[in-house]
Amino acid sequence: MTETLFTDISQLATPASGLQRGAAMRGLSVTENAALLVRDGVIAWTGQAADAPQAEQTISLGGRAVVPGLVDPHTHAVWAGDRLADWDAKLSGATYEEILARGGGIRSTMRATAAATVDELVALARPRLAALRCSGATTIEVKSGYGLDPEAELRMLRAVRELRREFDLSPTLLIHVPPETGRAEYVQEVCRHLIPQAAEMGLANAVDVFTEKEAFTVEETRALLEAAQSTGLHTKLHADQFHAIGGTELACELGALSVDHLEASGPEQIAALAASDTVATILPGVTLHLGLPAAPGRKLIDAGAAVAIGTDLNPGSSPLFSTQFALALGVRLCGLTPAEALTACTVNAAAALGLTDRGSLSKGQRADFCVLEGADWREVAYVLGGNVVAEVWCGGVRATAIRE
Amino acid sequence: MTETLFTDISQLATPASGLQRGAAMRGLSVTENAALLVRDGVIAWTGQAADAPQAEQTISLGGRAVVPGLVDPHTHAVWAGDRLADWDAKLSGATYEEILARGGGIRSTMRATAAATVDELVALARPRLAALRCSGATTIEVKSGYGLDPEAELRMLRAVRELRREFDLSPTLLIHVPPETGRAEYVQEVCRHLIPQAAEMGLANAVDVFTEKEAFTVEETRALLEAAQSTGLHTKLHADQFHAIGGTELACELGALSVDHLEASGPEQIAALAASDTVATILPGVTLHLGLPAAPGRKLIDAGAAVAIGTDLNPGSSPLFSTQFALALGVRLCGLTPAEALTACTVNAAAALGLTDRGSLSKGQRADFCVLEGADWREVAYVLGGNVVAEVWCGGVRATAIRE
Ligand SMILES: [Zn+2]
Ligand SMILES: [Zn+2]
Repeated sequence: MTETLFTDISQLATPASGLQRGAAMRGLSVTENAALLVRDGVIAWTGQAADAPQAEQTISLGGRAVVPGLVDPHTHAVWAGDRLADWDAKLSGATYEEILARGGGIRSTMRATAAATVDELVALARPRLAALRCSGATTIEVKSGYGLDPEAELRMLRAVRELRREFDLSPTLLIHVPPETGRAEYVQEVCRHLIPQAAEMGLANAVDVFTEKEAFTVEETRALLEAAQSTGLHTKLHADQFHAIGGTELACELGALSVDHLEASGPEQIAALAASDTVATILPGVTLHLGLPAAPGRKLIDAGAAVAIGTDLNPGSSPLFSTQFALALGVRLCGLTPAEALTACTVNAAAALGLTDRGSLSKGQRADFCVLEGADWREVAYVLGGNVVAEVWCGGVRATAIRE
Repeated sequence: MTETLFTDISQLATPASGLQRGAAMRGLSVTENAALLVRDGVIAWTGQAADAPQAEQTISLGGRAVVPGLVDPHTHAVWAGDRLADWDAKLSGATYEEILARGGGIRSTMRATAAATVDELVALARPRLAALRCSGATTIEVKSGYGLDPEAELRMLRAVRELRREFDLSPTLLIHVPPETGRAEYVQEVCRHLIPQAAEMGLANAVDVFTEKEAFTVEETRALLEAAQSTGLHTKLHADQFHAIGGTELACELGALSVDHLEASGPEQIAALAASDTVATILPGVTLHLGLPAAPGRKLIDAGAAVAIGTDLNPGSSPLFSTQFALALGVRLCGLTPAEALTACTVNAAAALGLTDRGSLSKGQRADFCVLEGADWREVAYVLGGNVVAEVWCGGVRATAIRE
């Protein structure tokens, strides 16, 4: 048994454990002059420093604020190649067709990723995950989805499995881009073989589908999610990014963990989410990077939904290497308050991954927490362009900063 | 004499030296497989590695990209107190009047700053300047303007003088907030005593005035800028932030170094800037933090103006602690290309401070440069929420990372 008492905490700010919906997202508990007892990687006690129990070991946090470790519930952190030339060309006025004609677009990322070995994918993803962890993320979801075929999808998930030795990752099998030909056969192949394989090998916790006019239809999505559920995997959806074609309603009907994007969600989709346990995950990095409309974060909370925030880290639409900054953007671009944004990036993001053992600094939860540079927890939402997370602790162990 | 050859530079990307206007802002020179010779803190040679001269000492930069040190031409980095409670209240729906009633607003920053000693101001500003330098800024402008009276303004400038031992700073005397009573006397006092004192003591390189409906009129601004010019100081303006009341036209008429903000600038103001040598400094952090309209960066360049970008680091309207991120926001929020944004944050930002000896990696310029994490210079504009600057070199000497 190891037991450590963390003292000299100016503010210990945390949501309650479990999914928080609507107005409850503002219900942060802020304890001043606090202490935190960790036993075997789990929080054993929190409260006023004056009431703290004795412990084997005491660590002073020097009058700084502590918040739960952030959970990033949506990343595509494994990719090869880059999209810098695409981006530069687009900013200089090139059309999407011209970018495709010079070999750019998402299929260039897919070609490069499919051509990479597991070791190469690991080496490429490691510094990205390290950047997210430096920004405060103690649990990170990582999706496949850039494979050109089932074998390449599994290779991406094997890279995630390797990286789980170093980071606490939640792997998701993403069915992302329909093949140019043989679409029905592909969906059937994925349902019959890829999903069961990923489940059997323990390579994925969830299956995610990109439901959109240009991607998979609602009918295809239903088949894919039902196949996932029959193997015991969780389900998630990319939906309502450009068009609300019914993905959100389907996800709520099937009890998916989350629906992500939601920029095009209207009153019906918001109502469906508010009436369900499905988390509404918003991705403000895409809004900033592409200059597209923001997801209706404020309306979702006001309607009673549970909102989470993710970076959506990916080379094409969200080169956002900081979960902390996703939190700060949730306030600026989606109308959340600092307390709502912290809840969105902790317990609600954990719920979006099916995890109930983390995200709150309360007894019995994993001892995943961030020590901030200063004494006021709100700086985690307020500061732009800096990193206010001074220390990241995962399961009671301090994570080392890795920069490559 | 010390002489160092920096080799193994994947890309050396730089604008030409001096002010770049309009289309010339895109005219970046990018040398692949480059080397850079520094002699006594000044660039002595740049070119292809194969053509590099011999040098006493050689340092390999490991195949990474190099860009000029960034210049942050607009910060209010010296302040005491914080505005977290104001911000939180505003996000929770409080009106500006309610915030003032509970003692918030800019005057709370002024009270706290005026009550602080020089040493306290130095200690508060140091980590902020360190954060800007870590983000790539080798030269940083810092303004006074939170003093309640001339003595407090001088105290802020004395703090900047202290900090110049550690950072390369350009100090500006900012005439920011009119007094609640005795306004005409205050302007007269500033013209007759404060400006000449600041000039004589070498405490400021420039005088800046906040010209706005709620601040100083165009007539008051003219008196202040003429007083500055008669002492030999440069002039700058905060103008067109909310209303285009004539500040930009006045600045161009008087040959001010820069006009900063410009969110409310229309065709006449853009035309005036395009016809002048006055730099148009845009501040996209304010746009992101407050959700207000962006300055017309794209239109300014298309009209032929010289655009610079600054953080406007301050606790009320721009808690933006990264010059690199200001550059990235200039692309997302103001429509600049990556090349234009790099020019805006280097030679044009230097010109906005009256400096012609830096901002370009060319012979005779100061050896201020950033080594990026990767091989492609465009990552400095592309990456959001991370820091892609691995090393900062000032006058040929590597700056140490200071985090407090
Ligand atoms: Zn995504
Ligand atoms: Zn300013």
